[in-house]
Amino acid sequence: MPLAPDQTAEIAAQRAARAETRRATVPALEEMLYHPHPVLDHGFVRVVDYMGDDGAIVQAARVSYGRGTRKVSEDEGLIRYLMRHRHTTPFEMCEIKYHVKLPIFVARQWIRHRMANVNEYSARYSILDREFYLPAPEHLAAQSATNRQGRGDLLTGEEAALVLDLLRADAARCHDHYLAMLNESEDGAPRDPARRGLARELARMNLTLNTYTQWYWKTDLHNLLHFLALRADAHAQYEIRAYAEAMLDTVEAWVPMAARAFRDYRLGAVTLSAPMLTVLRRMLAGERVEQGESGLSKREWAEFLAVVGAGEA
Amino acid sequence: MPLAPDQTAEIAAQRAARAETRRATVPALEEMLYHPHPVLDHGFVRVVDYMGDDGAIVQAARVSYGRGTRKVSEDEGLIRYLMRHRHTTPFEMCEIKYHVKLPIFVARQWIRHRMANVNEYSARYSILDREFYLPAPEHLAAQSATNRQGRGDLLTGEEAALVLDLLRADAARCHDHYLAMLNESEDGAPRDPARRGLARELARMNLTLNTYTQWYWKTDLHNLLHFLALRADAHAQYEIRAYAEAMLDTVEAWVPMAARAFRDYRLGAVTLSAPMLTVLRRMLAGERVEQGESGLSKREWAEFLAVVGAGEA
Amino acid sequence: MPLAPDQTAEIAAQRAARAETRRATVPALEEMLYHPHPVLDHGFVRVVDYMGDDGAIVQAARVSYGRGTRKVSEDEGLIRYLMRHRHTTPFEMCEIKYHVKLPIFVARQWIRHRMANVNEYSARYSILDREFYLPAPEHLAAQSATNRQGRGDLLTGEEAALVLDLLRADAARCHDHYLAMLNESEDGAPRDPARRGLARELARMNLTLNTYTQWYWKTDLHNLLHFLALRADAHAQYEIRAYAEAMLDTVEAWVPMAARAFRDYRLGAVTLSAPMLTVLRRMLAGERVEQGESGLSKREWAEFLAVVGAGEA
Amino acid sequence: MPLAPDQTAEIAAQRAARAETRRATVPALEEMLYHPHPVLDHGFVRVVDYMGDDGAIVQAARVSYGRGTRKVSEDEGLIRYLMRHRHTTPFEMCEIKYHVKLPIFVARQWIRHRMANVNEYSARYSILDREFYLPAPEHLAAQSATNRQGRGDLLTGEEAALVLDLLRADAARCHDHYLAMLNESEDGAPRDPARRGLARELARMNLTLNTYTQWYWKTDLHNLLHFLALRADAHAQYEIRAYAEAMLDTVEAWVPMAARAFRDYRLGAVTLSAPMLTVLRRMLAGERVEQGESGLSKREWAEFLAVVGAGEA
Repeated sequence: MPLAPDQTAEIAAQRAARAETRRATVPALEEMLYHPHPVLDHGFVRVVDYMGDDGAIVQAARVSYGRGTRKVSEDEGLIRYLMRHRHTTPFEMCEIKYHVKLPIFVARQWIRHRMANVNEYSARYSILDREFYLPAPEHLAAQSATNRQGRGDLLTGEEAALVLDLLRADAARCHDHYLAMLNESEDGAPRDPARRGLARELARMNLTLNTYTQWYWKTDLHNLLHFLALRADAHAQYEIRAYAEAMLDTVEAWVPMAARAFRDYRLGAVTLSAPMLTVLRRMLAGERVEQGESGLSKREWAEFLAVVGAGEA
Repeated sequence: MPLAPDQTAEIAAQRAARAETRRATVPALEEMLYHPHPVLDHGFVRVVDYMGDDGAIVQAARVSYGRGTRKVSEDEGLIRYLMRHRHTTPFEMCEIKYHVKLPIFVARQWIRHRMANVNEYSARYSILDREFYLPAPEHLAAQSATNRQGRGDLLTGEEAALVLDLLRADAARCHDHYLAMLNESEDGAPRDPARRGLARELARMNLTLNTYTQWYWKTDLHNLLHFLALRADAHAQYEIRAYAEAMLDTVEAWVPMAARAFRDYRLGAVTLSAPMLTVLRRMLAGERVEQGESGLSKREWAEFLAVVGAGEA
Repeated sequence: MPLAPDQTAEIAAQRAARAETRRATVPALEEMLYHPHPVLDHGFVRVVDYMGDDGAIVQAARVSYGRGTRKVSEDEGLIRYLMRHRHTTPFEMCEIKYHVKLPIFVARQWIRHRMANVNEYSARYSILDREFYLPAPEHLAAQSATNRQGRGDLLTGEEAALVLDLLRADAARCHDHYLAMLNESEDGAPRDPARRGLARELARMNLTLNTYTQWYWKTDLHNLLHFLALRADAHAQYEIRAYAEAMLDTVEAWVPMAARAFRDYRLGAVTLSAPMLTVLRRMLAGERVEQGESGLSKREWAEFLAVVGAGEA
Repeated sequence: MPLAPDQTAEIAAQRAARAETRRATVPALEEMLYHPHPVLDHGFVRVVDYMGDDGAIVQAARVSYGRGTRKVSEDEGLIRYLMRHRHTTPFEMCEIKYHVKLPIFVARQWIRHRMANVNEYSARYSILDREFYLPAPEHLAAQSATNRQGRGDLLTGEEAALVLDLLRADAARCHDHYLAMLNESEDGAPRDPARRGLARELARMNLTLNTYTQWYWKTDLHNLLHFLALRADAHAQYEIRAYAEAMLDTVEAWVPMAARAFRDYRLGAVTLSAPMLTVLRRMLAGERVEQGESGLSKREWAEFLAVVGAGEA
C-alpha cells in the first residue's frame, strides 16, 4: 500500500487539522481517523468520518433530551440488553464512513450488502492503477475436498510457484494491454499519435478481477455489525475477512461497549434449532443420545456436536 | 413547546460541552446544534448530530484521499453538476440526525419515507404526555371544493369555534381516560389501589391522532432532500410542511452549496412531459396553440400553463 | 369483519375468475386467494397475489435454467440448508401481497418493517368507517408488574367493564365528532348547508388510535419471515401477533418446505451467547454450575435456564 | 447465446407447462415467459416470473376489494396521473423476475441499483464458462474528446483489429489459465493428478471483466422504471443500455398503460431548473435572450437549448 507522496501529504494535512465541536467525540477513533490501515498486499481501510458513540445508542433507545445522567454501568447494561434481544434500531443511530482500497473480486462480494452508501472510483471516467492482488504464500490454498465453497490445504512447491506466476503475468499483461488500448502511457500522454484510443468504459473490461479499485463506503452501526458478523466469520473468504477484521478494530475503538456486546451475543454466539434443542435437553437430563435416534440429519448432528463442544470426544 | 426544566438543563449541558475533533465541522450548524426549533403548537425539530459538509460531497464524488485543494468555485460547480444530473450517491455521504416532537398523524405521513433510521418514544413502555395539536385559526381550513385531497378557505366564526372546541375536548377527554384506565396519576402514583390498571400497550389506543409523540430520525442528505422536495412542497399538508421548512433551514446552515443547488434544480424546477415539450417547441416557433389541438388533456393543459407562466394570461 | 354486500360481490367475482398461466402456481394458496381471514373484531388479512413457490427458492439458489429435475427430498434439503445457514437471498425470490384491515395502533408497529411496499387507505382523501377495535375480555390485560413493556393478568369485574365502556364511548364519540366536523353524514350528504366542513386531512386527527385503517402490503418471503419471527413471537403485542399468526397459515399453504424449515431453525430456535455456551459446556461435562460463578448476570442466567429447559427444576 | 441442449430442453419444458390460476394474468407477457431474449454476443434477458398487471396499480392506489368496475379509460387516466405526479407506491405493487446473463463489468454497474433482489451464479462454488464479451465493430468506440465519461467515433482499420485481438486473446488466455490453476479440464476431470488445484474462490480472480456471469434479478415496477430511466437513456453505457432496451420491451408487454405513461412522463420528459424556467418565460413573452445575460452557465445554456429544441437553430 505505498501511497503516492501527494496522497500521504493530503492525509497528513487532514490529520493535522483540528476543530471544536459540540458533537459526541471519541478520542480513540479520532486517533485512527484518516490513517490507512493496510490490508492484503496493496489495499487499505481508513475511517474518514463517524457520527455518534456508545452514548448515542443509549440516547436513541431512550429518545432522551440530553446525554443522560445514568451511570456508565447502566448504559452498558442497556446496550447489552438491546444487542441480546436484537433491538436493532438504536444501533442504526451511529454512522461511519470508510475509504477502502480493495480487489474487484472482493468488491463484488462486499457490494451485496445493500444497506450502505457507496461511491466507487469510476473506470468509465478515470484510469485504474497497475495494482493487483497476489495471495501471500500462506493464503494460496487448494480447493477444499469436502466443501465445494471453501479452501483446503496450502499449495506448495512447484504448483504454488506456477499459480503465482500465472496470476502475476496475466494481471500485468492485461493491464499493459489496457493502457495500450487506451493509447495512454501511465503519465497520460498519448502513445501513438496516429491512434484514437479505446473508450475508457470499454478498455476496463480487459482488466482481471484482482485489480484494485477503491470506494467510499458508509453505513450505520447495525448494518456494519451485520456485515462483520458475516464477513469476520471463519466461513467468509479470507480476502474479505481481512478487511472485516481491520474494521472490527475500528469498531472497538469507536463504540467499545457495543463491540463487547457484539462479541458476546453475535460473533461468539450459536443458534440451536428446535430439533437440536430437544436433543440438548435430553442430554442435560442425563440421557445418552446417538445421531440415529436424534431426529437430526448427519450434517446437522455434526453441526450440533461442534456447537456443544463434543466434537472432539 | 415548553420544555420541562430538566430537559432545558440537559440541552444546555450538551450545548456547553466542547471537544476537539479532526472531522469536518460546520460552525453554522454547530451554532444550532441541540437547540429545539419550535414547530406547530407543541412540537419541535432539533439537530442532535451530523456527519460531513459540502466538502464531503465533493470528496466522495472524487473518491479522494484528502480534503482536496480545488478552488471553492470548482467545488460548487461540481455539486451543481451532480444535483442537476441526479448523481445522487455523493449526497448520501452526509448524514444528519434530528430529534423531533410531532403529532401522531404527522408521524404517520413522515414514516412512509423508508430510507431513514427511527427510534420512536414507546407508548408500550412509557406514558405519553397530555399534549395534542390544535390548529391555529389561520390553518383551520375547510375541505377544498375542487381537490379531494386538499384544503379550501378558512373556517370562521361559529363553525371554527365549534371545531376547535370538539378537537380540544375530545383529545383532553381521551387522554384523561387513558390515564384513568392506566390507573396512574400524572406523577405515576396509582389512583385507586383496588384497581390493576390497563396495560400501557392497550391503553394507548384511546388516544387521538393529534397527540404528540417524538422520535430520533436520522437520514442521509440525498434522502433528506427527497423528503424536503415532497414535504416542503405547496401540495404537502401544512402540518408536515411546517417541519420540512424548519429542516430546510438546517440544511442551509449545514451544506449551503448543496442547498442552493437543491433550490435551483429541485425545489424550483419543473418537469415537462414529452407531449408538453412538443407544445412548447411549437409555441417557441411562434405558433399559437390551443388545448383542443395540443394533445394534452384539460388537466395537463392547465398544468402546462401553470409551468410556462401563462396561467394568468 | 362484516363486509358490505358490494365488497363481498367483488371478492366473489375475483375468486370465480380463472386464467391459464405458465407461472409457478400453488393450488393450496390459490384456494385461499382473495378470501378474507378474520382477525380481531373487525380486521382481516387476505392474500391478493403471490409470486413463486418452494421451487423458486431452489431455482434462484442454483441460478438454473428450468424448474430442475432434482428430487423433492433434495429440494427440501437445500431449503433447510439455506435457512439454517442464513443464506437469505434465495428466499427473497418469492413475493406475496396482502390486503389487511387493522387498527391504526397496530399499523404503527407494523410499518416499522421498512422492507415492504405499502399503499394505505388515505384519510386525507376519503372518510374512515366507524369501526374501532375493542379487546375481547380474554385479551383485556393489566399492566405487567415485572415487565414494563408487557401484559400481566386479565382485568376482571368492574374494572374490565369500566375500561371497555371508556374505550367504546371515546372511540364512538370521536368518530361522531369527526363526521360532524366534516359536516358529512355517513351517506356523504352535507349535514348543515350553512357550514363548510373541516378539511378531511385535519378532521382525521380527532380519531382514536383503535380506529381501523387498511392497506395493501407486499413483501418478499425473506422479509416476511423476519416479520413473522418478530411478530408471531410470544413477546409481540397480542394484537399484531393475531395478524402474524394468520399470515403464518398462508405461508404454510404457499411454501410448505420453507415454512417447516422456518419453524425448526427460526421460530423454535434459540441463540446462546458466548458466555452461555461456556456454561453449557461445563454442564455437559458433568459440572454443576450456579449463577454466582457462571459469568452471567441474574437476568441472563434466568434466560439461560429457560433455554435449556431447567427453569422448571 | 447458444444454450446447451439440456438448457434448451428445460426452458421448453417450462414453457409447455400450464396451470390454472386466480391471479391477474397477462397473456402478452405469458407469451414471452422463460424465453431468452439475446443481448450482446453471449448474453440474454428472460422473464421467469411476474406479479400483477396495470389493474394491480389501480387497485393498490384505491386500496380496493375487487378488480374494480371502472372503465378502462379511467384506469389509464389514473395511472397517468400517478406517473405524472410521482405517486410511486402503487407501481411498487407489481413485481417481475428476470434471469440475466451479462458481462461482469455490466453486472458491476447494474448492482448499484440496490432496491432489488439478486442471486448470482457463484464462482466460489462453480466454474464460470469460457464466454466473454467482445464488442461488435459498430460499438468499438474511441474515447470521447469532449466527455471524459463517454464514447466518441468508432475505431476502425488497424486500431480496431488490434483492440479486438488484444481483448480476445487476453480473455481467452486468462480463462485457460483459470482452468489450469483449477487443475480441471472443461469436463471436470483433473488435468494433472499430481496437483491439488487452486481454490475456486481464488482462481476466479484471474478472469477478465468481460467474462459472462448470470443472475436472477427481481424488482418492483417502480424500481424497474427507475432503472430503465437511467439505463435506457442515451447517456448510459451502450452495453447496459442493450439490456435495458430488451427489458423495456417486456414492460410494454406486461403493463402497457404504465409503459405509455413512462414514455410520456419520464423517458421523454425534461426537467427545467428554476433559472432555466425564468429564461423560458422571458422567451415566451417574446424577448430575445442571450447566454451572457441568462443567468445560466455556458454548460447549462447548452443544456437549455437542447431542451427547447433551439440547439439546431
